[in-house]
Amino acid sequence: MVTYEDALKEVLYNIPVLEAEEKPLFKCAGQVLAEDIYPDCCFPQTDISGPDGYAVQSADLKRAGRDRPVRLRIIGTVRAGRLPKRALSPGTAMRIMTGAVVPRGADCVVRFEDTDEPENKNGPNPGNPKEVKIYVSVPSRGNIRPAGSSIEKGARLLPKGTVMGPAQISTLASVGKSQVRVIRQPVVAVIATGDELIDLGRPLSPGKAYNCNTAAISSLITYYGGKPKVLGIARDRKEDLRAKISKGMDADLIITSGGVSKGDYDLVRLVMDGMGKVIFSKIRMGPGASVALGIVKDASSGNGKESIPLFGLSGPPPGCLINFETLVRPALLRMRGIQDIDHPVVEALALDSVAGVMPMTFVRWTYLEKRNGQFYVRLNVADDVGILPCIATANSLTMIPPKGTSIREGDKISVWPLDWRRPQFLPAYL
Amino acid sequence: MVTYEDALKEVLYNIPVLEAEEKPLFKCAGQVLAEDIYPDCCFPQTDISGPDGYAVQSADLKRAGRDRPVRLRIIGTVRAGRLPKRALSPGTAMRIMTGAVVPRGADCVVRFEDTDEPENKNGPNPGNPKEVKIYVSVPSRGNIRPAGSSIEKGARLLPKGTVMGPAQISTLASVGKSQVRVIRQPVVAVIATGDELIDLGRPLSPGKAYNCNTAAISSLITYYGGKPKVLGIARDRKEDLRAKISKGMDADLIITSGGVSKGDYDLVRLVMDGMGKVIFSKIRMGPGASVALGIVKDASSGNGKESIPLFGLSGPPPGCLINFETLVRPALLRMRGIQDIDHPVVEALALDSVAGVMPMTFVRWTYLEKRNGQFYVRLNVADDVGILPCIATANSLTMIPPKGTSIREGDKISVWPLDWRRPQFLPAYL
Repeated sequence: MVTYEDALKEVLYNIPVLEAEEKPLFKCAGQVLAEDIYPDCCFPQTDISGPDGYAVQSADLKRAGRDRPVRLRIIGTVRAGRLPKRALSPGTAMRIMTGAVVPRGADCVVRFEDTDEPENKNGPNPGNPKEVKIYVSVPSRGNIRPAGSSIEKGARLLPKGTVMGPAQISTLASVGKSQVRVIRQPVVAVIATGDELIDLGRPLSPGKAYNCNTAAISSLITYYGGKPKVLGIARDRKEDLRAKISKGMDADLIITSGGVSKGDYDLVRLVMDGMGKVIFSKIRMGPGASVALGIVKDASSGNGKESIPLFGLSGPPPGCLINFETLVRPALLRMRGIQDIDHPVVEALALDSVAGVMPMTFVRWTYLEKRNGQFYVRLNVADDVGILPCIATANSLTMIPPKGTSIREGDKISVWPLDWRRPQFLPAYL
Repeated sequence: MVTYEDALKEVLYNIPVLEAEEKPLFKCAGQVLAEDIYPDCCFPQTDISGPDGYAVQSADLKRAGRDRPVRLRIIGTVRAGRLPKRALSPGTAMRIMTGAVVPRGADCVVRFEDTDEPENKNGPNPGNPKEVKIYVSVPSRGNIRPAGSSIEKGARLLPKGTVMGPAQISTLASVGKSQVRVIRQPVVAVIATGDELIDLGRPLSPGKAYNCNTAAISSLITYYGGKPKVLGIARDRKEDLRAKISKGMDADLIITSGGVSKGDYDLVRLVMDGMGKVIFSKIRMGPGASVALGIVKDASSGNGKESIPLFGLSGPPPGCLINFETLVRPALLRMRGIQDIDHPVVEALALDSVAGVMPMTFVRWTYLEKRNGQFYVRLNVADDVGILPCIATANSLTMIPPKGTSIREGDKISVWPLDWRRPQFLPAYL
């Protein structure tokens, strides 16, 4: 029996960061960059226009004002994606679109809004005018996005270790990166255990129970950036469990649920011991105190991997899911190369009281809410709605201290928020 | 030109919740339940054992104690998934495993820990003993999980409107639900526009720019629970844009980027107007003030849909991504049936000062951090790292008020946290 803190240390000690892979930028969301990114050239490559307007010489506009417009002859148009066909001389202007290359001879851009361009024009360049009236003066370099202003050549754009998201993808796409090296996603084999289990959708006979962990564990694996590989139900015979584990040896991690306690048919620990070693098989925290981590080997699997870690999670869902959040989540983040593994914590005021009754820390499924900038947590959710609906109602976990201690209404306590449902999100630093 | 608030109202007014679909429970994570769930029977169906131990009659244990064990004759074993083969009579005990049906005649269960079961046994039922010593008394019903204690028959397990996550999947799997009715995921067509755009990975010639929005917008669509359908780059000709939009008519929403300002080749607003109507095409908030919402119809597309909404987002990434977060995100959440659409907000102390210089509210890419329970926000990230790396460094958006106002170091201000990268997550209620 180890403390949760020691169990977590063992997890992080025994489970390594996975290797990098080359991947299309399109598909790397959520993965960790395995290389520093330096762009090949500066961006933008040349001076370009910020707004839609006219490229001009600022000297021409010195005396321009609302009631004293300067008239310039229009010598053409430069649009984004094309190059200017001629250079500008004093007294002339070139229509220029956002992102278009500033023509030689021009040193600033005047926005359409500061010219006699019709305001509610419904179509491009109405009337095809020969000259433009300009109502403002613009300093030299005004409204020009200089070459290199977005990113200089040789500057590091993103460091190794960055978690890729839409903004990082946008940034690398801006410099044309189509492939990136990222830490690959862990493949996780999922095995349910137990003679009592039947598949969802089948009729339930007395003494049987539905296999409720496979779907939940698979969705948590996906949620935490892994790829689940479902291997079905192992029956309560050593050969059956061994065969399923062998089948999972081409994954990066195996997760079983159930069969890890001390019952007569709890075979996970025994098979784990037979196929490798047990690192821990019970922790001083419930529910789900019966939870094991081991390393298993299978020479016969022939996949080249010497050994892989195996989590034996508790069977009943309240413990199984807490095992996942407290032990498997850090393992998956570690494998993915994510640095910030600590669970987010918020400080909340207790809305009700609870006395510690177990000999060890006991985790409750609780309900966190925020009012006027203050977090509150309801601890006795299960009393109100029942055990099963409680898990589905809860949005956080709270550690209830052991027997002899208690939490009282109004106490300020630490709560682990969960957002497994992700209708919306908040960041890691909370 | 509308205010952001009015634009948001138009989005929510014009974009409806999608219809429901029947889906395997396995695949519904992130979707919203379209039916109330009532289980067919109670759970557990019968009285079952909580721990591994012995089913006994509590009357037999009345005088049991550490130094005064009660001896009972073992009459067999009942394991999970099987039915007890006989009933219990006084003076007898039946080995029983977690989750197994309690035999007739027994009214409580004694945990192995409270018997002479070897503590460090390495295998089931060592020695196959004929009798068991019990060191504690257990009250009637002790360690039994009664029929219906997880969920009663007829009780509502989950209400319509619930966002499905791992815990909800676990709960519905517990009662054997293999299929559920959920609001379907929106399919979103993605079109980039502009003659200057070239695909990632190709060499960049002067005046050209990489198509950086398609990959970023696609990953945001996925992040907010939609399915992107990438339609490539529309060139700056009306026919080309019209053809791409027609191709997107079998989606639930179309998103274009670029070409929505007032340049000569900004065709999105014009084509939108020609194919339906423009609801707004400019908002009083930058960057990305040029952003349009419209409804487009295409009788010829023959997909049965009369019309679908189209967002014309701003081209430059800082504005394009802010358009997405401020306008498209609420649209996607609405389509998915999610109730809580408001963006999360945290109150933070400004770490630096910034004066409003624009005529309207301007959104900055900012950096939020938490120290000792207090949020701080760095406003001038772009000054330190440059515009492009700024987007990739930022983890929040902050509205800078218009010209004439300013934020000073130490001011308490509202910040929108972003967690697009999801290494870990926090909940919606923050």
